[in-house]
Amino acid sequence: MIITKLCVIGVGLIGGSLALALKNKRLCTEVVGYGRSLSNLQQAVELGVIDRFETDLATAVAGASHIIVSVPLGQIATIFQQLQQYAPKDAIITDVGSAKECVVLDARAHLGDKLTQFVPAHPIAGTEKSGASAAFPTLFENRKVIITPIAENSPTIINEVSQLWQAAGASVVSMDVVHHDEVLAATSHLPHLLAYSLVDTLASMNERREVFEYAAGGFRDFTRIASSDPQMWHDICLANRDALLKVAQHFDEDLQKLIKALENQDSAEILRVFHRAKQARDDFMKIFV
Amino acid sequence: MIITKLCVIGVGLIGGSLALALKNKRLCTEVVGYGRSLSNLQQAVELGVIDRFETDLATAVAGASHIIVSVPLGQIATIFQQLQQYAPKDAIITDVGSAKECVVLDARAHLGDKLTQFVPAHPIAGTEKSGASAAFPTLFENRKVIITPIAENSPTIINEVSQLWQAAGASVVSMDVVHHDEVLAATSHLPHLLAYSLVDTLASMNERREVFEYAAGGFRDFTRIASSDPQMWHDICLANRDALLKVAQHFDEDLQKLIKALENQDSAEILRVFHRAKQARDDFMKIFV
Repeated sequence: MIITKLCVIGVGLIGGSLALALKNKRLCTEVVGYGRSLSNLQQAVELGVIDRFETDLATAVAGASHIIVSVPLGQIATIFQQLQQYAPKDAIITDVGSAKECVVLDARAHLGDKLTQFVPAHPIAGTEKSGASAAFPTLFENRKVIITPIAENSPTIINEVSQLWQAAGASVVSMDVVHHDEVLAATSHLPHLLAYSLVDTLASMNERREVFEYAAGGFRDFTRIASSDPQMWHDICLANRDALLKVAQHFDEDLQKLIKALENQDSAEILRVFHRAKQARDDFMKIFV
Repeated sequence: MIITKLCVIGVGLIGGSLALALKNKRLCTEVVGYGRSLSNLQQAVELGVIDRFETDLATAVAGASHIIVSVPLGQIATIFQQLQQYAPKDAIITDVGSAKECVVLDARAHLGDKLTQFVPAHPIAGTEKSGASAAFPTLFENRKVIITPIAENSPTIINEVSQLWQAAGASVVSMDVVHHDEVLAATSHLPHLLAYSLVDTLASMNERREVFEYAAGGFRDFTRIASSDPQMWHDICLANRDALLKVAQHFDEDLQKLIKALENQDSAEILRVFHRAKQARDDFMKIFV
């Protein structure tokens, strides 16, 4: 794989970490960043995440062999409109969006004749931190990247995008786009919704100071994801609204049953739910961690 | 402080770690364990957590200068009944229960003339692991222990119990018992209820295998506490039922509003909740971590 020019559109935690991973493997001749925050781009250059940046997208992507779209989901349509106009016709394009059906819809609506060059991707990696300063080259090592190829993709382009992510240290799996969104709604989007909701509830309490003061490690872990970028997660939740609503409502029904069991002092039911949950988590952690 | 004989009733993560911490500081002449699982007690001796064990409570506490009651909340009443009969009349007694009003009620009902010797305590420390093998001597270092003294306690006995926990590395704070239960319901008991409930919901889905397979670090952290001991948390939730129900219902109302906002694509409201939550968590983590 030869990356003559990697263009990173949105030099945040994910885009920046991919750039660093590929630079560290000496696979890129040049890495150019593009984004909306000048200070973030300047910091990205200072930290060596990118070689230089452009504030004009047409200039940024000119001559690029590989283009990574790593902006919040709400901005992808606008970027695609510009890529349709300015992306080189042989450039390989991928993204990092946490919901994929909306990205595919945006791509079909706006990428025009560049659609075949675009393979949707979602790296299952991240931290609660944001921006170029949070990027690090090993973020994708031993992590999964889910690609959701579209009918218009050739086996060659799918292979090229897979190789790109593998070069960054990830293992690549292919998934149907609708199925991806259902699975991620459950495993990622719902936990974020709950963490934000819980912290917001607790912060509204009279005892808010003590609630946080006497929080143990469990609480800190449980709510860590509530420190994630609000705009990014707002975009994800709205972009994957249908799948998220389905699993959120399912969760809320179950929660209400559990609260009812507590009201009724239904000891057996509470114990049953807790046991089943512990068993499921322990089993799956054994298999997948 | 001289601990001629420390008796640990329930040699699990918490009781075992306290024993190890005090042994490491060479404060105990002898540490005797008592519990229901013979294999756990044997392991505790092999690991050096306790010096020896007894299977009869009267023998275990005979001559003890300090008694730690570290059993699940559902078993405390039975232990208190026996302590009322067998605890030496000058022994210092404390416990580690995560809910405190129920413990005080049990103490008043069963400890008889030993009530004055008992200072309720709750160390804000733990992991999701259980049993003597999970114990380690630094568990309480830089952690808080909340004591909720009762009117019958003398300043001297309160001081003795505080010193015991401080010797294990903790800082001790005193709190009203009802207030303790409200704060802990929010910061600890509710997150556990939610984590168990979420994992149980996801484990019931058709896509359960993939949900866990594609779980990232955020999900693992968020659900870690669902690997905690089900019986212990069942006891805690029932013991602190009123306070937990109150905050759980408050949370559920807020969650339903957030789900409704998602249904209505109320972008501003979603963003408002996420921003407030991130701000609150970041602020408090800065102060308290």
